[in-house]
Amino acid sequence: MKKNILYAQSGGVTPVINATACGVIEAGRANLDRIGKVYAGKDGIIGILKEELIDTSKETKASISALRHTPGGAFGSCRYKLKSIEESKREYERLIEVLRAHNIGYFLYNGGGDSSDTAHKVSQIGKKLGFPVQCIGVPKTIDNDLPITDNCPGFGSVAKYIAVSIMEASLDVESMASSSTKVFVLEVMGRHAGWIAAASGLVAREEGDPPHIILFPEVPFKQREFLKKVKASVEKFGYCSIVVSEGVRNSKGKFLADAGTRDAFGHAQLGGVAPVVANLVREKLGYKYHWAVSDYLQRSARHLASRVDVEQAYAVGEAAVRFALAGKTGVMPVIKRVSESPYRWKIEEAQLSRMANREKMMPKRYIAADGMGITAAARRYLAPLIRGEDYPPYDRDGLPKYVKMKKVLAQKKLPEFDI
Amino acid sequence: MKKNILYAQSGGVTPVINATACGVIEAGRANLDRIGKVYAGKDGIIGILKEELIDTSKETKASISALRHTPGGAFGSCRYKLKSIEESKREYERLIEVLRAHNIGYFLYNGGGDSSDTAHKVSQIGKKLGFPVQCIGVPKTIDNDLPITDNCPGFGSVAKYIAVSIMEASLDVESMASSSTKVFVLEVMGRHAGWIAAASGLVAREEGDPPHIILFPEVPFKQREFLKKVKASVEKFGYCSIVVSEGVRNSKGKFLADAGTRDAFGHAQLGGVAPVVANLVREKLGYKYHWAVSDYLQRSARHLASRVDVEQAYAVGEAAVRFALAGKTGVMPVIKRVSESPYRWKIEEAQLSRMANREKMMPKRYIAADGMGITAAARRYLAPLIRGEDYPPYDRDGLPKYVKMKKVLAQKKLPEFDI
Repeated sequence: MKKNILYAQSGGVTPVINATACGVIEAGRANLDRIGKVYAGKDGIIGILKEELIDTSKETKASISALRHTPGGAFGSCRYKLKSIEESKREYERLIEVLRAHNIGYFLYNGGGDSSDTAHKVSQIGKKLGFPVQCIGVPKTIDNDLPITDNCPGFGSVAKYIAVSIMEASLDVESMASSSTKVFVLEVMGRHAGWIAAASGLVAREEGDPPHIILFPEVPFKQREFLKKVKASVEKFGYCSIVVSEGVRNSKGKFLADAGTRDAFGHAQLGGVAPVVANLVREKLGYKYHWAVSDYLQRSARHLASRVDVEQAYAVGEAAVRFALAGKTGVMPVIKRVSESPYRWKIEEAQLSRMANREKMMPKRYIAADGMGITAAARRYLAPLIRGEDYPPYDRDGLPKYVKMKKVLAQKKLPEFDI
Repeated sequence: MKKNILYAQSGGVTPVINATACGVIEAGRANLDRIGKVYAGKDGIIGILKEELIDTSKETKASISALRHTPGGAFGSCRYKLKSIEESKREYERLIEVLRAHNIGYFLYNGGGDSSDTAHKVSQIGKKLGFPVQCIGVPKTIDNDLPITDNCPGFGSVAKYIAVSIMEASLDVESMASSSTKVFVLEVMGRHAGWIAAASGLVAREEGDPPHIILFPEVPFKQREFLKKVKASVEKFGYCSIVVSEGVRNSKGKFLADAGTRDAFGHAQLGGVAPVVANLVREKLGYKYHWAVSDYLQRSARHLASRVDVEQAYAVGEAAVRFALAGKTGVMPVIKRVSESPYRWKIEEAQLSRMANREKMMPKRYIAADGMGITAAARRYLAPLIRGEDYPPYDRDGLPKYVKMKKVLAQKKLPEFDI
């Protein structure tokens, strides 16, 4: 009897994670001689634990094809981290029970470092419980912080959105600077790694080009040097355009964004470093400012995706099915840069055991000597990732034609499970 | 001797104000038998007072053509309001002196209500000082608050950007809501008029569609009703997507953005109503939230312009030159809606004296009964304005090909002037 695929999305979504889903499902449909159905976990692994498996065979060909240009997570995602096999024994056993009940031969888990770890553990425990399932990790993260892979699907599109946005907003500021706003601050995502912030530096091709300052989480904030550079930019170029990563900390390791407010769990509430930096500039230098926080806009802006990113996102999904059919388990398709100029890439295979729980920070050689810009080496690495456009179709009302899944669930066969 | 045109941009720029400049300059170049040069004030009227006139004949045909797809204000703009003729006599006289020195026959002033007023006054004082100059206002404002004209060039593109952005971010939130973020708040511009916020409502075509709540400056904020609707949305649809205008006030007329919060340096934090609304939701309902402030991104996002808007922006520039050549003065080309379905429009002529200092608010019949959404009448009005796409060209590095003007100044002929 043919085995089924179970695909699930995990963690924060990206503008192109559905392109990966599209790659998985289309590759599944192209191999119906060897594969049964492609199921998708509703809201990720939570849905699997609850035995809520979306039967993607109920979706039309056109709907699946439209996943390629639809942002968000079409089947739902979740933040739910399984711990060690000992600590989360009950959940791992339930997972295997669900996989067994639905004849799942291939578990494709689309996420970042944590998900690689989970997929790896499911592979181990399945064997132990006498239900061997092939587990394939599928890379995804806007943070670009996975090891081994040259870059992560999702990152290129966010990078392009941020680069174009700071380019456009800077043209605005520049035209107003003689009598009005002189400093603009754009906050971007990336709590631990400054890849997204770094991508904005692609806009600065000639002296005076924005952004004039980039603040990375990898570099402790130095107030005096920062203010000096703001002043120099305004005096030399008429204005100063700043990109700041949400994760910037001061020399004591405290988040700049941590203005003392706490969230419901008592954690420092992040996501407002732009106003902090902007207020500092006004207080110390007196310049009129504006600030923006792009937040979810940046990671859902499918309207401005990178074509390279869309192609890679699709390719890792397709490759995951190919790996599954080749009998592989405990692996992840990753992106290998074959050449830089012209840019060429291919899909390779990495061991999940080597992917898990390792974050890839910006290397020192990508950060300018003053800590507030990027180097030529960084440009060479980043440039190909934002190349090409890949617009979604629009309807006659001028809105993108994004698709919604019907999300028909497979018949449940097991008792309820409390999560 | 042929007279020259002097064109100037005024106030906050838009994604398409340069399309208007393109219309002016291309129409000027098409009529070289009757028009001398087209000058542009550097940084708007400040440059005119300083006798800094950019000679647009020094720009190539390709550069002028590229203005059509370039955001920001290509010649610079400014916030500099001339007062009454009595109060600002010195400036008005200097303006006329500069116009006379450079043989300006036509003054085309591209701005909002204040600029209409200034253009009108220049027309009056020119006559009085024996240098009659034809003054044509050219409409521009993302706020869509000019009277008489059906809509304002600049608004449609911002409207489209905000509509697409809330659509995309909502797909993101929806996919995460089972275990993570349940409420998303997007802050948009519009301090006095809620047109931009209203445009987001175009996305909500079926029950449950985002945004679930729109907060307008025209409607005093009612905390209890707001929280009730947030809760109902989360319970019914799984999440709640909110668009809030920067100008929302409480029942005492105080801006919500001015909530007395302090940043890390102890300063009052202004210009962020989104975090205030988001914090309120968490405090009262306990939902996990995210918020974004699009600020200048929204008014410079030429990468996602409305085609209708670009065409109208170009058309008002072209019409201004046509009006000038027809001997008109003290007028403005405005947009007249000829039919709604199919949408058809044409350019008409309005008296500047009727445009000045009148703001067009959202009419009551466009705001839903509960004050937190738009009506079918609003949809009919807004829908055509975001139709069609008009992408800028991109270079091989994946960035838009936005143009920079050379900004060659005409030889000065007058003594310095202190402003």
